[in-house]
Amino acid sequence: MTVNAYGAHAADKPLESLAITRRAPGPHDVQIEIAYCGVCHSDLHTVKAEWAGTVYPCVPGHEIVGRVSAVGAHVHGFLPGDLVGVGCMVDSCRHCADCEDGLENYCDGMVGTYNGPTADAPGHTLGGYSERIVVHERYVLRVRHPEEQLAAVAPLLCAGITTYSPLRHWNAGPGKTVGIVGIGGLGHMGIKLARAMGAHVVAFTTSESKRGDAAALGAHEVVVSRDAAALAARARSLDLIVDTVAAPHDLDAYLTLLKRDGTMVLVGAPATPHPSPQVFNLIMKRRALAGSMIGGIPETQEMLDFCAEHGIVADIEMIRADEINGAYERMLRGDVKYRFVIDNATLGA
Amino acid sequence: MTVNAYGAHAADKPLESLAITRRAPGPHDVQIEIAYCGVCHSDLHTVKAEWAGTVYPCVPGHEIVGRVSAVGAHVHGFLPGDLVGVGCMVDSCRHCADCEDGLENYCDGMVGTYNGPTADAPGHTLGGYSERIVVHERYVLRVRHPEEQLAAVAPLLCAGITTYSPLRHWNAGPGKTVGIVGIGGLGHMGIKLARAMGAHVVAFTTSESKRGDAAALGAHEVVVSRDAAALAARARSLDLIVDTVAAPHDLDAYLTLLKRDGTMVLVGAPATPHPSPQVFNLIMKRRALAGSMIGGIPETQEMLDFCAEHGIVADIEMIRADEINGAYERMLRGDVKYRFVIDNATLGA
Repeated sequence: MTVNAYGAHAADKPLESLAITRRAPGPHDVQIEIAYCGVCHSDLHTVKAEWAGTVYPCVPGHEIVGRVSAVGAHVHGFLPGDLVGVGCMVDSCRHCADCEDGLENYCDGMVGTYNGPTADAPGHTLGGYSERIVVHERYVLRVRHPEEQLAAVAPLLCAGITTYSPLRHWNAGPGKTVGIVGIGGLGHMGIKLARAMGAHVVAFTTSESKRGDAAALGAHEVVVSRDAAALAARARSLDLIVDTVAAPHDLDAYLTLLKRDGTMVLVGAPATPHPSPQVFNLIMKRRALAGSMIGGIPETQEMLDFCAEHGIVADIEMIRADEINGAYERMLRGDVKYRFVIDNATLGA
Repeated sequence: MTVNAYGAHAADKPLESLAITRRAPGPHDVQIEIAYCGVCHSDLHTVKAEWAGTVYPCVPGHEIVGRVSAVGAHVHGFLPGDLVGVGCMVDSCRHCADCEDGLENYCDGMVGTYNGPTADAPGHTLGGYSERIVVHERYVLRVRHPEEQLAAVAPLLCAGITTYSPLRHWNAGPGKTVGIVGIGGLGHMGIKLARAMGAHVVAFTTSESKRGDAAALGAHEVVVSRDAAALAARARSLDLIVDTVAAPHDLDAYLTLLKRDGTMVLVGAPATPHPSPQVFNLIMKRRALAGSMIGGIPETQEMLDFCAEHGIVADIEMIRADEINGAYERMLRGDVKYRFVIDNATLGA
């Protein structure tokens, strides 16, 4: 089946309209009519070949929501018409310890929703900037939000789960003070989720101008990280910090804000390492510097259900498919509150 | 009371015999006749002013064992004649969350056994290279080993607890594979302790010549870290790594050996930071890089009891007090298996 998509033929080419093929649904496949697809920074990194290994044509997009249009004979969990989502992966080995633990995101055989190996033409996966996608039922999520929120649900599939997973894993909740560093696509979700989990939320931003926004998103406190006195006032007081900033920056400024046994979790991966943290800042209070990558399928479903229950969606700006190149430029400038979402109905225009 | 000690009058002076005073025991104090004192790398760093803030005269030593010679009126836990130990601290604030949790080692008011603030003359604490010490009962440990092992018990008070605490905190035990990086004063204890806890122990050393020693200490496997193929064979297989190497080195080589959710704990603090670890190595498997500093009083007692029960002591080389300057030189060359211990009976010689 041929469907309209948006993608790039080379790292130095803009994204443009192109036609791709999707396989016929196999017995365990779910075919999805994509309604909306969020625009993640990883899309841009991959399509511009800023990370190693991009293959072309490259069709990005891993914050996918839509409606089931067909299911394979052995699919029991989904019916045509169901609202569903697909996140950052469409396959994994399904038998390793990670897969058995529902943490397919850490499986060595995890297949990304785009740019991953597949038997389908053209030999690598093509993502959500397209009209339809066919995905094995194991990697399809149920969306329980009202349909009118569907576009704003899309970013939950990456930005949402990427912050939800470490918040849950490191026990954000009542009685805990949680820092969220950076107020962008990931950080704005981190604030909303940590608040809904019952934690006391401290947002950190480099920009005084974001103070009001961070509070509106749910932060109990906002600290401008250029303000040394404000940082010092928060020394040794946080249980957990989720650091969403992918640009290299000083980690010690945040590590020293952790209590004994506190953890700072990096969810953004800079192209070059951060300045090396001082070992004393880890040793003195038994602190940890950890990383976390998206989340597994069961916890992604748990996150979607949690968000539906708490009325949480992303703050989005809807764009047409042919606005994507300009949206990338704005994203690079940080000029988006807080996530672009493509209206996939515009792909065939 | 005046007692003989060994210490330095300045950073560029050798250690020499000197006389110091000890306070009369207060109501909660225990006076200890020191039998042996282990020689820790921190002693050398401090006496040579390689870390900030050394005050002179400096009498190092925080691996102290001996016999109680007097107790204050309100001391109920110790009697004259008891075998006891004193480790890295002799006081703390006693009311913060860290102290209440028995983790006095993380208290902001922790007073080191030497070079810490005190009301006693000369205004800073003087350590175990001395004939006697007077310590508040809260910071005195009971030694249950046979008396003939007493000298080899001394290093448990720092090298032992520094490795025991992270091994316990991060759940070393049956079914876990634990790496110990570096086979020196700390590392040789780490191997013995992890083995006794029931873990599968993999020792990492830069030196092929230490292979036999590491196995004799209890390592199930020994990996020479210059052997890239041997390291690669252990990729993604360790639950916990305790890194005892204080010199700056490549952390990624070890981080990549951790399983998903594995932790690498630094217990040595280099004077300059390690090369910065790759964030991807933390993110890809939800790994953590943590630090740990000695241990609290209750867990130090637990460690001593565990060692007594399992017949664990340090491997030591006994020296006279007047051999200490030469011992420091040998320690800097790594020429000790694995800890020097001063026979404090030689202080008055």
